[in-house]
Amino acid sequence: MTAQSLHAPSPPAPVLLRETSDGIAILTLNRPEARNCLSEGLIAELQAALDAIRDDAGVRAVVIAAAGKAFSSGHDLKELTARRADDDGGRGFFAQMMTACSAMMQSIVRLPQPVVAAVQGIATAAGCQLVASCDLAIASESAGFATPGVDIGLFCSTPMVALSRNIGRKQAMEMLLTGEPVDAETACRLGLVNRVVPQGTERDAAVALARKVARKSAHTIRIGKEAFYRQAEMSLADAYRFAAEVMTDNMMARDAREGICAFIEKRQPTWQDR
Amino acid sequence: MTAQSLHAPSPPAPVLLRETSDGIAILTLNRPEARNCLSEGLIAELQAALDAIRDDAGVRAVVIAAAGKAFSSGHDLKELTARRADDDGGRGFFAQMMTACSAMMQSIVRLPQPVVAAVQGIATAAGCQLVASCDLAIASESAGFATPGVDIGLFCSTPMVALSRNIGRKQAMEMLLTGEPVDAETACRLGLVNRVVPQGTERDAAVALARKVARKSAHTIRIGKEAFYRQAEMSLADAYRFAAEVMTDNMMARDAREGICAFIEKRQPTWQDR
Amino acid sequence: MTAQSLHAPSPPAPVLLRETSDGIAILTLNRPEARNCLSEGLIAELQAALDAIRDDAGVRAVVIAAAGKAFSSGHDLKELTARRADDDGGRGFFAQMMTACSAMMQSIVRLPQPVVAAVQGIATAAGCQLVASCDLAIASESAGFATPGVDIGLFCSTPMVALSRNIGRKQAMEMLLTGEPVDAETACRLGLVNRVVPQGTERDAAVALARKVARKSAHTIRIGKEAFYRQAEMSLADAYRFAAEVMTDNMMARDAREGICAFIEKRQPTWQDR
Repeated sequence: MTAQSLHAPSPPAPVLLRETSDGIAILTLNRPEARNCLSEGLIAELQAALDAIRDDAGVRAVVIAAAGKAFSSGHDLKELTARRADDDGGRGFFAQMMTACSAMMQSIVRLPQPVVAAVQGIATAAGCQLVASCDLAIASESAGFATPGVDIGLFCSTPMVALSRNIGRKQAMEMLLTGEPVDAETACRLGLVNRVVPQGTERDAAVALARKVARKSAHTIRIGKEAFYRQAEMSLADAYRFAAEVMTDNMMARDAREGICAFIEKRQPTWQDR
Repeated sequence: MTAQSLHAPSPPAPVLLRETSDGIAILTLNRPEARNCLSEGLIAELQAALDAIRDDAGVRAVVIAAAGKAFSSGHDLKELTARRADDDGGRGFFAQMMTACSAMMQSIVRLPQPVVAAVQGIATAAGCQLVASCDLAIASESAGFATPGVDIGLFCSTPMVALSRNIGRKQAMEMLLTGEPVDAETACRLGLVNRVVPQGTERDAAVALARKVARKSAHTIRIGKEAFYRQAEMSLADAYRFAAEVMTDNMMARDAREGICAFIEKRQPTWQDR
Repeated sequence: MTAQSLHAPSPPAPVLLRETSDGIAILTLNRPEARNCLSEGLIAELQAALDAIRDDAGVRAVVIAAAGKAFSSGHDLKELTARRADDDGGRGFFAQMMTACSAMMQSIVRLPQPVVAAVQGIATAAGCQLVASCDLAIASESAGFATPGVDIGLFCSTPMVALSRNIGRKQAMEMLLTGEPVDAETACRLGLVNRVVPQGTERDAAVALARKVARKSAHTIRIGKEAFYRQAEMSLADAYRFAAEVMTDNMMARDAREGICAFIEKRQPTWQDR
């Protein structure tokens, strides 16, 4: 070891940590000193990670977690503000960021694999949207949720798209109009998270939930998740027409054949994910 | 009585029991040994019963109950599996079953009379869908609800159409992705059932609720129920345009005239159901 | 003072009281002896008040309260019944009333300012709809909510448009089909109101909540509230496209610039409402 190497700056820590173990990809927001705010770089990293996971048959479920005290504080206000110096006052960059962030959130919804949020701290604005966009969410008892954009003159309009599809109207409106946080228990009662667990166990609980889903046929999960969000936007009659077709196709798949046989024969199925 | 008659097999018990008393039709799923699974025959019987009830002015409300320990375990997997031997691998039969089952569920929604589920045991997959499709539901404290198709490789895609129109997204997703059951209290909290009652009283409670609604004007109930599901699929402005027309027509009906007069005169109204 | 002036009838009390203090407009339904029923006159007064508030930059939030024991009993049945003597049996007047009432309810939704209901007593039929139409609602612990039109042969079809956009389907159906009231705690659990407070404090609590929102930028609140109800009727993809544009525009507004700067500089923002 030389004196030089001792004093050389270590490379910057990646803003998003990716690890995959036993088919579970864990994405950890890793800008704790910046409250894991969703900078251009972090949004791009999340998008890249989701794009890679989409076509990775080795990933059967995803957990989105965060390092540090906050889960995520939403957009990076300093980064946005710096671009007010642009020729267009920042409009082009702002539009690009809102579009990129919305696309990333929709990538979670469209991802074939289920996505579980592990919320260890406060999730605000686009951070709250990130939780709302996941299929499932586990919260620490010390987690909190807020859409406080209204307090800085910037209404949480994109976060509300996801939030209002998780909880009731009056409750969403209260969060959006007052900017005040709700605690984990309240978030659970309102429908924003599935379960509240003791502080420090939320990541393990989210991984355990992801593992549970990862043991199913990936083919079955993929078609089911996709169908869920598609039928949610249809009339009842259209939804039934669509879902009946999905189920008929599903019946013809290898894993349904195996799964139903195994059930009748009272044995464990073996999936081939097709 | 001859020895022959003594030993002759009794005719098979009907898979669906129908009884009507005091204007309440009670349909009882009656394949307890098969956990009241929705075979081709039982779906056809339910459809026939609903078709008959639709035009029967003597029926003012319907209760759907079940005999035995389970409410309904969903589709008849053995029956479906047997048709894999068909020339088309079963596809034609599967499509026919999914369509027939979806049509029956929608017949409940479109029925002029209100329909109350009386859930005495576990309601899974299309059995859970049957509960979700009813206008109202009473559950025994020992009832349970699950969409476990994912465990046999067959995602509960048609059940989720009804389920996701009763409960929140994350909660529906958890049931669909994990396949795990929720107990009656949880189902009530989530919105899938209206009330939980002591075990063994769910049928009487459902009949009592049906009777309460049956005492209203059948004309009023019919137009209200139909309007409810139609307006639910409209924008706010369209829904108000539609509902304002419905209410104006309703005002011109004989029973509204009578009901409002009776209210002003502080007496009981007498309905003519028109 | 003369004997004449002593005995002269005082002018009729206005059916709607309007007061504005510190930017909060309080509209008080003031027909307590008629349970604050929504007569043609009261609907017109509410519409006029909302129309005036819409363009009044001095009003930053609105509270709708009521005098007497009942919050509002819905339409004025005596007034409606009297018009059965019209040449058309009342149809024209009924259509006019339903349209006027629906327009008034939608004016609350479209109002740029947030609207908070202060529910001190029973809110039934269109009275319940009025609560459901407000952005936020505070209920006294002694408040109650019902859609009992079914008991007089007149299904609460227009109230259900608002009600079914606040609470779950089975719970809305139970209220509509049975006509039975739910208490304040239940209404809160179902999502119809935001909070239950001790009797007699609901008005102060509603004003306090209104004040909290009134301290935000009125420009931010306006664009956020409008966007909330518009995106609620869109598909996820359309909602995100729309909301991303709204947020980009919002970023360019003066108050977002100020609010974000103040946040970064750790000082209080000063709003110019643009």
